[in-house]
Amino acid sequence: MPENKGFSATPRAVGPSPRQRPHETGIAGGFWLYGLHAARSALANPRRKIRRALLTERAAAELGPSAKRVAHEIVAPEVIARALPQGAVHQGAALLCDSLPALDLEGLIMALPPGRRVVAVLDQVTDPHNEGAILRSAAAFGVAAVIVQDRHAPPESGALAKAASGALDIVPRVAVVNISRALEELGRLGFWRIALTADGDAPLREAATEGDVAVVLGAEGSGLRRLVRERCDVSAFIPLGSAMESLNVSNAAAIAFYELTRSS
Amino acid sequence: MPENKGFSATPRAVGPSPRQRPHETGIAGGFWLYGLHAARSALANPRRKIRRALLTERAAAELGPSAKRVAHEIVAPEVIARALPQGAVHQGAALLCDSLPALDLEGLIMALPPGRRVVAVLDQVTDPHNEGAILRSAAAFGVAAVIVQDRHAPPESGALAKAASGALDIVPRVAVVNISRALEELGRLGFWRIALTADGDAPLREAATEGDVAVVLGAEGSGLRRLVRERCDVSAFIPLGSAMESLNVSNAAAIAFYELTRSS
Repeated sequence: MPENKGFSATPRAVGPSPRQRPHETGIAGGFWLYGLHAARSALANPRRKIRRALLTERAAAELGPSAKRVAHEIVAPEVIARALPQGAVHQGAALLCDSLPALDLEGLIMALPPGRRVVAVLDQVTDPHNEGAILRSAAAFGVAAVIVQDRHAPPESGALAKAASGALDIVPRVAVVNISRALEELGRLGFWRIALTADGDAPLREAATEGDVAVVLGAEGSGLRRLVRERCDVSAFIPLGSAMESLNVSNAAAIAFYELTRSS
Repeated sequence: MPENKGFSATPRAVGPSPRQRPHETGIAGGFWLYGLHAARSALANPRRKIRRALLTERAAAELGPSAKRVAHEIVAPEVIARALPQGAVHQGAALLCDSLPALDLEGLIMALPPGRRVVAVLDQVTDPHNEGAILRSAAAFGVAAVIVQDRHAPPESGALAKAASGALDIVPRVAVVNISRALEELGRLGFWRIALTADGDAPLREAATEGDVAVVLGAEGSGLRRLVRERCDVSAFIPLGSAMESLNVSNAAAIAFYELTRSS
């Protein structure tokens, strides 16, 4: 149980004015996570340190016993809205959280339960809504981990957690310094590395083999970097018509997870 | 060719201040469409009326001969940014457009080329980023039309067009008054209507038959409305694990299009 040293019974003291982006600047390293799904998962995640919780009466009832993990403040919706970016759909729940402790790739992989493992590697996907949707699909399809490059991925934020709909606290997210080196490590650990790209060598369906698989997705626009692609065992494409050359990256990821986990 | 009566050689006159949301209020019924993919498709769409075009020199070169369709103004990127919502990624191209003329569902269906037809029906999907990504996937997979409810769908906007990455001017988008009635009409026209929902009767793969198919997707959160679901021939689900009960709606749509068009 977190200690909640940041607890304060003064709802009016919720962060600076909206222009100062309190969701980023409230407490060094902390961020406001909001929305019922995101809050429920954060409360259920023992690795998530929660410094403060603002809930409406209704949200506290919806969250049930899990809300008891932290000493929360029951407040009016407007108090929550003032702590968040304008227009944030908070559904009566906002938690001031720390980012999750860093995970080690090899340690994480070794600790996975037996059976086929699928992991996703994101090469500089920087949009939090896209990464959030990818985390959500990863949780939905049982993808074991999502690996991102720490300096070219969105920081943990309310927008990322909201788009992930709880999955930020469900799917292990490993931030690595160097994607190429992470792919080498995955290779050593026995993963078949598939670069997903419009000009891939084979349709995705044919590129997926039995064992452990890492599917590598690139940034929109620039796509996969050459060195990253060269670290893969095979390149694969999702068959598309001629009217559109690519999919939104989270849509491509969803299809890849659907295809790669169908037989596992 | 549009007449471009709105043409003006005075770049400084680009719309009111950002607080007034000039992308919505510049000219009644018009909106600023931006981004290279979106602009290229709009310029190539004879049904799209373009009142004004602001391009950087570089964007004009990228767009090539298609930019010649309209008398455009070559301007600095800052001039374009001032006409758009803050942070809009315009890539040097912004077109002040009219919304597309309304389409008639039956007329559109009757005019489609022979072969298997897949259409998507969106029941109150209101987020422009989600609908934009759905249009993009529809274009990518050759989905013949996207049907929305006119009063519960995002209006044509720069955000919708940008998320669609050009598909707003590629995929026919039919706004209907009543989704249930549109489903009745699709039934009369021989379409097999599949309601995609977490508690569907069969996995999507088994629900897809040979002939023409309409896949019906609901709003996030509330899902498909009962009356809409009752107008469908079958309900189907995308098999997910237990960690997450649903996908982002654009991700679900992408998987459905992938699955339904694979054998066509």
